[in-house]
Amino acid sequence: MAQVLYPRLAVIGCGLIGSSVARAARGAGVVGEIVVADATPKARERVMALGLADEVTADPAQAARGADLVLLAVPVLAMAEAARDVAPALKPGATLTDVGSVKASVAEALAEAAPPGVFVVPGHPIAGTERSGPDAGFAELFENRWVILTPQKREDEPYLEAVQRLAEFWQALGSNVERMDERHHDLVLAVTSHLPHLIAYNIVGTAADLEEVTRAEVMKYSAGGFRDFTRIAASDPTMWRDIFVANRDAVLEILGRFTEDLQALSRAIRWGEADKLFELFTRTREIRRGVIAAGQESPEPNFGRDRHQP
Amino acid sequence: MAQVLYPRLAVIGCGLIGSSVARAARGAGVVGEIVVADATPKARERVMALGLADEVTADPAQAARGADLVLLAVPVLAMAEAARDVAPALKPGATLTDVGSVKASVAEALAEAAPPGVFVVPGHPIAGTERSGPDAGFAELFENRWVILTPQKREDEPYLEAVQRLAEFWQALGSNVERMDERHHDLVLAVTSHLPHLIAYNIVGTAADLEEVTRAEVMKYSAGGFRDFTRIAASDPTMWRDIFVANRDAVLEILGRFTEDLQALSRAIRWGEADKLFELFTRTREIRRGVIAAGQESPEPNFGRDRHQP
Repeated sequence: MAQVLYPRLAVIGCGLIGSSVARAARGAGVVGEIVVADATPKARERVMALGLADEVTADPAQAARGADLVLLAVPVLAMAEAARDVAPALKPGATLTDVGSVKASVAEALAEAAPPGVFVVPGHPIAGTERSGPDAGFAELFENRWVILTPQKREDEPYLEAVQRLAEFWQALGSNVERMDERHHDLVLAVTSHLPHLIAYNIVGTAADLEEVTRAEVMKYSAGGFRDFTRIAASDPTMWRDIFVANRDAVLEILGRFTEDLQALSRAIRWGEADKLFELFTRTREIRRGVIAAGQESPEPNFGRDRHQP
Repeated sequence: MAQVLYPRLAVIGCGLIGSSVARAARGAGVVGEIVVADATPKARERVMALGLADEVTADPAQAARGADLVLLAVPVLAMAEAARDVAPALKPGATLTDVGSVKASVAEALAEAAPPGVFVVPGHPIAGTERSGPDAGFAELFENRWVILTPQKREDEPYLEAVQRLAEFWQALGSNVERMDERHHDLVLAVTSHLPHLIAYNIVGTAADLEEVTRAEVMKYSAGGFRDFTRIAASDPTMWRDIFVANRDAVLEILGRFTEDLQALSRAIRWGEADKLFELFTRTREIRRGVIAAGQESPEPNFGRDRHQP
C-alpha cells in the first residue's frame, strides 16, 4: 500500500500536465485530497466532469490554503503571478513546486514570493504530448520519464527532507528523479527540447509560406520526415512563447551554434563535398544508438504512424 | 485473385526498399518470379536466407535479362551506373523504373541509358524507416503511402499503357499513385523530406559537439523533442549523402528560406517579441490539422514512445 506523502495536494492550472499529475497522484495513492484551481470556467467544468479533484476553484489561494504540496502548472511566464497568488495562503511546512520547462527565472520568482517556513523546490517533468487541456492528460504520462528538481542551495535538514519527499512523490508516479542546478537545467533543455521545438515551428512556418509548393502538397507528402515536425509544432503556443521568452539566453546560444553548423552544411552541399556530408550522417547515427542505450526509446523500428523517409 | 502484371521482376539493390518491394510484390501476387541483384555478398546471403527471391545474383545484367519490370533500388548517385549495367540486357517492351528520392537527375540518367523500345518510368515511393538492409524491409511498408511517378513527356499508347501498368503494380502493393513533373517532385520533396532530414542531421551534430552539455545528458533528456530528431538522423548515410548532392539546387533554395525565417525568429526571441512568437506557433498548429485531415497521421496523440515535450 502506498504511503500518503501529502494529505492535501493543490494543483494550480489544470492543463495537460496538471491534470495528469492529479490523475497519477490519485492512482498512486500518495495524496489524500486533491484541490484544483484553474482560471478558465471551461477547464474547471471539465475537471469536475472528469472527477479529477475533490474541490475545484477559480481562486489559487483557496486551493493552496492548508495544502501540503502546492504544484504550479501554468505557463512559465504566469508562474510569478501564480506564486504571488498562493503565497499568502501557504501554511508553514508546505512545499511549493512547479512543472515549468524553464527553471532559473521560475526558481527566482518562487523564492521571492514564498513566505518563510515554506519549502520551495522547483521541478520539471520531462513528459508531455502535443495536446493541451484537462482532457489531454493521463495517469501514465510520467512513467519512466525524468523529473528534474532544482533545489535551492540549502543544507538544513527540514529542507532536505522536503526535497526528498517531493522526489518520492514523483517516483510514486513512475518517474526517475534527478537533481540539477537550475542554470544547467536551462542549458540542457535548450538543447534537448527548446531548440528542437523552435526548429520544428520554423520549418513548418517556412513550408506554409512557399509559393511554388502548395500547402496541400506539403500535407499530402509529409510522410517523408516533415510530419514528425508538424506534431512537435502543434504544441501549445502560449506555453512555448513563454519558454522562449524566459529561456532567451540559453536558447540563443544554442541556436547560434546550430546556425553556424547549418551554414557549414549548406556550404558542403553547394560545393558537393560528399565526404563531409557522409561523415556527419555517420556520426549522428551513433547518437541515436546512445538514445536507445539510455532507454529513451525502443530499438524497434517505428512501424506505425511514424514510418518516414525520402 | 490478383493478376500477374509482370511475369519477371528484377530488383537491383536489395536494401530496405528493394527487399520490401520483393516481399510486397510476392504477397500481392502481381509478379511471377523475382530476381534480385545486389553487389554485397552479405546482402545476397540474407536475401537467400529470407527467401525473398527465386534467383539471387551479383550481376545486374543477369537479373535484368528477360525481366518485364526492372526496378533500381540503389542510392541516387548509383542509379546512372545501375541503369548502364542493366541496359544491354533489357528486352524490348520491358519497363525500367527506380525508387530514388530525387527524380530530375535520375530520370535523365535512366533515359540516357535505356535502349529504344524500353519504357522508362521513374518513380518514388514515399515510405521507409530509419533502418537499412534486406532484414529491415517488410511487406506492409507501402500501404497507404504515396508513390509519385514522373513519366516522360510521351503520349504514345504503348508508353501510357506501361505507366498505367506500373501504377497498378504500386496500387496492388497498397499505395496511392500520383503523377508529377520531375522538377516539381524534387522541390516538393526538398520541403517535405530533404530539409527535415538536413535539419535533423544538423541539430544532432550540434548537440554532439557541445562542451557545456554532455552527450550522456543529451541522450538522457532527449524525450523533450530531441529524440524525434535522432530517429530521423539515424537514416542511411550513403542514401542521404546522395540525395543532397543530387538535389542540391532545390535543397539550397528551401534551406535559404528556412534560414531567413530562422533569423527572424531568432531576432523575435532576442527582443522578446512575444506576439510574433505566439502568432507563428498558432499558425503552425493549423498545418498539423491539415496533415491529419490529409490522412497522413491519426489525430490520436502518440502515447507510446513518442511522448515528448519541454
